[in-house]
Amino acid sequence: MTRSTQVLTAEAALKAIAVAQEKATEIGVPMTICIVDVGAITKAQLRMDGASLSSVDVAINKAYTSVAVGSPTSGLFDFIKSDAPLLAGLPSQPRMAIFGGGLPIQIGGELVGAIGVSGGHYSQDEVVAQAAVDALGS
Amino acid sequence: MTRSTQVLTAEAALKAIAVAQEKATEIGVPMTICIVDVGAITKAQLRMDGASLSSVDVAINKAYTSVAVGSPTSGLFDFIKSDAPLLAGLPSQPRMAIFGGGLPIQIGGELVGAIGVSGGHYSQDEVVAQAAVDALGS
Amino acid sequence: MTRSTQVLTAEAALKAIAVAQEKATEIGVPMTICIVDVGAITKAQLRMDGASLSSVDVAINKAYTSVAVGSPTSGLFDFIKSDAPLLAGLPSQPRMAIFGGGLPIQIGGELVGAIGVSGGHYSQDEVVAQAAVDALGS
Amino acid sequence: MTRSTQVLTAEAALKAIAVAQEKATEIGVPMTICIVDVGAITKAQLRMDGASLSSVDVAINKAYTSVAVGSPTSGLFDFIKSDAPLLAGLPSQPRMAIFGGGLPIQIGGELVGAIGVSGGHYSQDEVVAQAAVDALGS
Repeated sequence: MTRSTQVLTAEAALKAIAVAQEKATEIGVPMTICIVDVGAITKAQLRMDGASLSSVDVAINKAYTSVAVGSPTSGLFDFIKSDAPLLAGLPSQPRMAIFGGGLPIQIGGELVGAIGVSGGHYSQDEVVAQAAVDALGS
Repeated sequence: MTRSTQVLTAEAALKAIAVAQEKATEIGVPMTICIVDVGAITKAQLRMDGASLSSVDVAINKAYTSVAVGSPTSGLFDFIKSDAPLLAGLPSQPRMAIFGGGLPIQIGGELVGAIGVSGGHYSQDEVVAQAAVDALGS
Repeated sequence: MTRSTQVLTAEAALKAIAVAQEKATEIGVPMTICIVDVGAITKAQLRMDGASLSSVDVAINKAYTSVAVGSPTSGLFDFIKSDAPLLAGLPSQPRMAIFGGGLPIQIGGELVGAIGVSGGHYSQDEVVAQAAVDALGS
Repeated sequence: MTRSTQVLTAEAALKAIAVAQEKATEIGVPMTICIVDVGAITKAQLRMDGASLSSVDVAINKAYTSVAVGSPTSGLFDFIKSDAPLLAGLPSQPRMAIFGGGLPIQIGGELVGAIGVSGGHYSQDEVVAQAAVDALGS
């Protein structure tokens, strides 16, 4: 009646936050970092000093989007740009963020959550998110 | 003072779910299937194992949209694409999904509900929804 | 970085729905039955023919509450009735249902989801929920 | 045209989280801890392993309430219990939590944010919140 799965620990979430914070500091852009579980429930979150107000909501939305579709948010626009109905309809779905900075977190090939980063250009946000994901292994 | 109408039964809704589930399994993509009545109230719903988190909300929205406008969600984009106000305004209406996967359920020419399917590409979602509608007859 | 856990299958959720439906039929009261996972995301849901409109939202809220606090909703009032701040504050928390009909689903001592049932008196709802939980084993 | 004020740093928020986490571990109850600034914007948040789903929303609401009214949430019920309009109306205000576990964070007599803790009985939640506030000094 059940199947086995993996759940992200608080320790892993805090490690991801710390690594992301370090990378954002290195880049010189304050960011908000949000880690969610497979149900898109926030596991850990940090708004760095000076991170924009919008970064808080956007980081959460990127994390939601990434775990909700199971892929990086950076690939979403390429996926929908030649598909008129999706291009018109997807971006306005609630909580949907279709630019980089959200990455799924997979352990052993299994989706266990996602990270959303916001505060810089989305390409910077994704570099920070990637650093955190890399630090968690796979 | 009243007129007779038809109402979808739980038996029919569960049959639609079962047929949709079978078709999705055949296609090899786990999906969420939602059946609603004419008031867009959920009659039956199933999230298959492995269906994405986004599929839950999107399936509900497709079912809502389809019964709300009385037509397949796959036709909506063609309907609005040359109408600037609709193209700009409709996609962001709450609960509105303008890509395939939502189909009205009609019995004897009468609208009795809708099915919303999400999890694959919307063309796959619509194949699954169509299989369920076909199984209900008309 | 992760810990192992169990996830409720669609098969189990549909079985719980079927058993609950049978029990509600036996009692003679149409009900809505909702099964959620540990993130309170709907796994399966059924509104029986004739089940009240309120039963839909209330069943969902009972399932949410039961998985959110990890205990039967029927015990909540006893828990808060002698605690004035909780008695005044808990019932109005969003999605919170503090009367019977919501039960956690535990497999091997682990919380994997919950069932919410509504449509009859809450004592009837709980009998139906219990039948479904019993059928899933533990 | 301006006045100087104090703003909680990310370093302080993470320290508060760490102290709260340690205290909750000592008590043996997994909790969610949320730190907000004066605008009730989340500065840092952690859901410990095993913390209930309800703890996430409730911790946020306690932090909101505490910074919104500028006082501990544990004192709110005593304040409203003999005031019929407040007793009837305040608990159901959105995001309002009227039981212990939310504490304002004041530095130099100035309100700079709040902490919300949830997961145990509210008396346990408040002990954990107090430990974090104490660690920040004043």
